[in-house]
Amino acid sequence: MPPTTRRRLADDRDARRPAAATTEASTMTDDTTRSETEVLIMEATYAALRRHGYADLSVAQIADEFKKSKSLLYYHYDSKDDLIAAFLSFAADQFMADIEAVTAAEEPVATVRTLVDHLLTVESREMRDGQRMIIELRGQAVSEPRFRERFTRVDDRLRERIRSALAAGVERGVFDAEIDPEDTAGMLYAALTGAMVQQHTADGDPTEAVRRMIHRRLDRLVVD
Amino acid sequence: MPPTTRRRLADDRDARRPAAATTEASTMTDDTTRSETEVLIMEATYAALRRHGYADLSVAQIADEFKKSKSLLYYHYDSKDDLIAAFLSFAADQFMADIEAVTAAEEPVATVRTLVDHLLTVESREMRDGQRMIIELRGQAVSEPRFRERFTRVDDRLRERIRSALAAGVERGVFDAEIDPEDTAGMLYAALTGAMVQQHTADGDPTEAVRRMIHRRLDRLVVD
Repeated sequence: MPPTTRRRLADDRDARRPAAATTEASTMTDDTTRSETEVLIMEATYAALRRHGYADLSVAQIADEFKKSKSLLYYHYDSKDDLIAAFLSFAADQFMADIEAVTAAEEPVATVRTLVDHLLTVESREMRDGQRMIIELRGQAVSEPRFRERFTRVDDRLRERIRSALAAGVERGVFDAEIDPEDTAGMLYAALTGAMVQQHTADGDPTEAVRRMIHRRLDRLVVD
Repeated sequence: MPPTTRRRLADDRDARRPAAATTEASTMTDDTTRSETEVLIMEATYAALRRHGYADLSVAQIADEFKKSKSLLYYHYDSKDDLIAAFLSFAADQFMADIEAVTAAEEPVATVRTLVDHLLTVESREMRDGQRMIIELRGQAVSEPRFRERFTRVDDRLRERIRSALAAGVERGVFDAEIDPEDTAGMLYAALTGAMVQQHTADGDPTEAVRRMIHRRLDRLVVD
């Protein structure tokens, strides 16, 4: 897991025993804190998921990756899906912080372009493994309400990031006033999701075609 | 499983013991035949997947849904993933036959519109359960090459169906000659896949926005 993991951590609303967590030293000083133990448990979950995948994963395998006393892990989490639900919140916070960081200083058009490129670029084996892991867990969200709740939050935040950039562009007269920012954001985000899913679950990579099409579409939406 | 299942069955190239299969009565008279036993095993796999989901599924649970001697099932298939890989081929053939049937008599523009509506419409609980099942299995394709191979085949066939309709439309002067049928098909199919995945793995349904956007886009592509 990259070093940024320990810096950008937000509160996991589903931590089962927050009292126990907050008595430990925090890895951050602002309001979005996680205890060092929680972070180490999330890193162990990530390592175990990467090694075994979801279907074959057991809590014992996660405990094997944990660098502290195993009883601490069992004390904080009751089951595999408990650990994975917490991991999805953890990964979502990190991912959204990445998105905010890469688009922070951008104008509306550049924000959408950067976001598209960020989502469709697989720069390393680590990133590829991370995306595959998320896609496998997304498949499990059809039957696990806690996973579904996490994916809903990420979908809503990303779609809203695109929608607000499109709306700001229309307001500033950069984008064609005819576009519907809400539907356009829904379409773009669906295409990005579908391209990522197809890329990791089938041969032949559709991401380049989707990237080209979205950039071309944005070219046309920009008012000269 | 709907009654059409038994009618529209194509050869499963991965049947492990074709000799055993072909000695039994076939359910079809054309070249795409599956034995009655194979069909019953696929129906049992479907029923067990629907009841238990992939992660918790065992071969014994599939055998419990099988109406004939359990040893017949164990004779044909060695493992859970064996059964599911065969089921994915079976379901893909049925799905593509459905697509061919609904778009058979259509003009290029109508073919794309019908295909979009067919993919994004969930008419019954059975259809919803079937889509969820496929999305869960798609998540497993990140690590199971045989599943990946099945999804590649379906993706390629659907993308090609859209591409050829767009190309035919351009050729007949119905669609704007400026479009790139290949990239446009890639973008549309990615958006359809993403909308279906989001619909079943998160709250809030993006399918209507995607449907509206695609139909609006087709309106603009049509040359008056």
